[in-house]
Amino acid sequence: MLEEAPVKRLAILGSTGSIGVQALDVAGRFPERFEVVALAAGRNVERLAEQAARFRPRLVAVADEAAAAALRGRVTRGTEVLAGDAGVVAAAAHPEVDFVLAAISGGAGLRSTAAAIEAGKPVGLANKESLVLAGELLMARAAARRVPILPVDSEHSAIHQSLVGHNRGEVRRLILTASGGPLRSVPAAELPGVGPERALKHPNWSMGDKITIDSATLMNKGLEVIEARWLFGVEPRRIDIVVHPESVVHSMVEYIDGSMVAQLGISDMRGPISYAMGHPERLPLELAPLDLARLGRLTFEQPDPIRFPAYTLAYRALERGGTAPAVLSGADEAAVAAFLARRCRFTEIAEICAGVLEAHAPEPLRSVEQALAASELGRREAEKRVARAAG
Amino acid sequence: MLEEAPVKRLAILGSTGSIGVQALDVAGRFPERFEVVALAAGRNVERLAEQAARFRPRLVAVADEAAAAALRGRVTRGTEVLAGDAGVVAAAAHPEVDFVLAAISGGAGLRSTAAAIEAGKPVGLANKESLVLAGELLMARAAARRVPILPVDSEHSAIHQSLVGHNRGEVRRLILTASGGPLRSVPAAELPGVGPERALKHPNWSMGDKITIDSATLMNKGLEVIEARWLFGVEPRRIDIVVHPESVVHSMVEYIDGSMVAQLGISDMRGPISYAMGHPERLPLELAPLDLARLGRLTFEQPDPIRFPAYTLAYRALERGGTAPAVLSGADEAAVAAFLARRCRFTEIAEICAGVLEAHAPEPLRSVEQALAASELGRREAEKRVARAAG
Repeated sequence: MLEEAPVKRLAILGSTGSIGVQALDVAGRFPERFEVVALAAGRNVERLAEQAARFRPRLVAVADEAAAAALRGRVTRGTEVLAGDAGVVAAAAHPEVDFVLAAISGGAGLRSTAAAIEAGKPVGLANKESLVLAGELLMARAAARRVPILPVDSEHSAIHQSLVGHNRGEVRRLILTASGGPLRSVPAAELPGVGPERALKHPNWSMGDKITIDSATLMNKGLEVIEARWLFGVEPRRIDIVVHPESVVHSMVEYIDGSMVAQLGISDMRGPISYAMGHPERLPLELAPLDLARLGRLTFEQPDPIRFPAYTLAYRALERGGTAPAVLSGADEAAVAAFLARRCRFTEIAEICAGVLEAHAPEPLRSVEQALAASELGRREAEKRVARAAG
Repeated sequence: MLEEAPVKRLAILGSTGSIGVQALDVAGRFPERFEVVALAAGRNVERLAEQAARFRPRLVAVADEAAAAALRGRVTRGTEVLAGDAGVVAAAAHPEVDFVLAAISGGAGLRSTAAAIEAGKPVGLANKESLVLAGELLMARAAARRVPILPVDSEHSAIHQSLVGHNRGEVRRLILTASGGPLRSVPAAELPGVGPERALKHPNWSMGDKITIDSATLMNKGLEVIEARWLFGVEPRRIDIVVHPESVVHSMVEYIDGSMVAQLGISDMRGPISYAMGHPERLPLELAPLDLARLGRLTFEQPDPIRFPAYTLAYRALERGGTAPAVLSGADEAAVAAFLARRCRFTEIAEICAGVLEAHAPEPLRSVEQALAASELGRREAEKRVARAAG
């Protein structure tokens, strides 16, 4: 039987991370649909070598020459190995690539997203920093180049699925659902005493430490508001958050007639990953189906800005504009790192971020490098506040 | 300011019923979008005269000459008044009509839906019998004539809104939500003793007696399965029911990747009515917004085929095919009427319908008149069973 859909040729940036591994799992299940042309990762030579052996990409990019040298002995002759930022950019812009899955975390991820857009490649975007730090810039470039940006996280994928086919001009609100994180039911008085162990116990999703703490403070939802603002071109005052501990409704769109369209599913990142990779087609994944009758109930509540004020800072950063979201993002990184190192209290994360954000005089955003510098500035300023409070 | 959307010229069939009144309410709120060209109703001359005075249609059709005579003295010279089936058909096929809202109940509604389709008019379909009795025929005619059929009930409107923009070939299941009706929590042993008063207390929707009892038996959900089967061209085995007492999620679609898209809203029929009337645009209705955080929770459970077997008969009727769904529909009408008249028990409604359905030898469906005759046959056969049990 002839396959009608053409093979999509992939670059997976961040292939050894959680999203990258799951993206390769999806690609491996549908060999008639996907070919892996390029991989990029950091220093996990062991896993990269396995991935290269299985998918036989043309190009593998690693963080540095040492990793490149270690990898070169373990790949076949058809696979070129490059090192450093130039390698990642080469993977993103590879002439045989049709789709870039941008799943490198942090600032390096932002640069490679920008490179993919400049090369005119459709992007599946899992790198948060891209939109939080420089969403305004990147979306403008993507629009100018007519490059589709497909979200690879459950909330924005849900909004994408709830918008498709409907008229954009008829959207009244985007409603992001938030699990509420591991501390949702903890009383205000107890929050200052919460340590990393308790804050790291996420009820629904297994994620990295930074994002789990961001989930506990609700800063993560704030950063998602910033992402949604740029991804969907919706004003912040029309983006709301509702706490939904079961994380079954992944997010919603409300239209001008009061009708709401929502996307629901189990908590499995292969859902949004495969949606982005397959788009505009869905892949027949054999994930466990969502059984609402078995679940029995879904609950919803307002987010609490008194106990979890961090998300409100995202709206404030968007209001201030320009470099402010990047500064907030950097400040949060440093504050979360300090919390994990027991150098600040849980409740101080938001306090530090608020202080750094208010002290910053935003500049209009003109480049990715400026956005990265602003994030770095936020990090340093937050670190100063941590040191001051400790000293 | 110039309005860009052209005025849509409406025929409202069944204008004095609940759906018709609400459709005129919607039309009246958006005079720049809608013009009412034709109205059709039964014998409620009082209300029709008010509607004609307000909307000044070209044509008003009533049930008979007596009603026509009473109405003629009360409308202006620009409004023609016709009587009988020919009048309704003239309203549905009026050359100046762009959109027919088919909200006449019962068999008369089926004939006027068929007339609108034959006249090539887009139809907003609120008449259940059209699809239950003759869905296979009508949808084939609508497809042949490229006539869009837009559902006007909350469940099928929800499915329409959850399908638009997605690939039809990627649908795995349609999931109709059911409130479970007023007897949802009543134990099996009590059901035979339930009288009309108790069965008529619907928790979420204010509807007519027949549909409220159908909601209590779950027959209504079964009939909706038949409608969905023809409206969306989906095999019955891929249409499921989930009980959702809050009636907030109006229905859902599950795709092959496990993702579910749902439409949610308050319980206000102006939602689905305006969606059908405005399509492909939404109307900025000032309905109360759905506030999930305030609602707090949504619950779901499996329908219970032991206590409420009626819905399973719809699947059986589809399996038998041809005239079987029409016979089931007619049998249910007679059984519900008998229950309301205290001539049979609540639990006998499904028993009578099952008996009539199994005794019927279905014929392939070739015409609307044959479908109406099959429904009448079902009604008579059920009535015989009621009389036999009583006597």
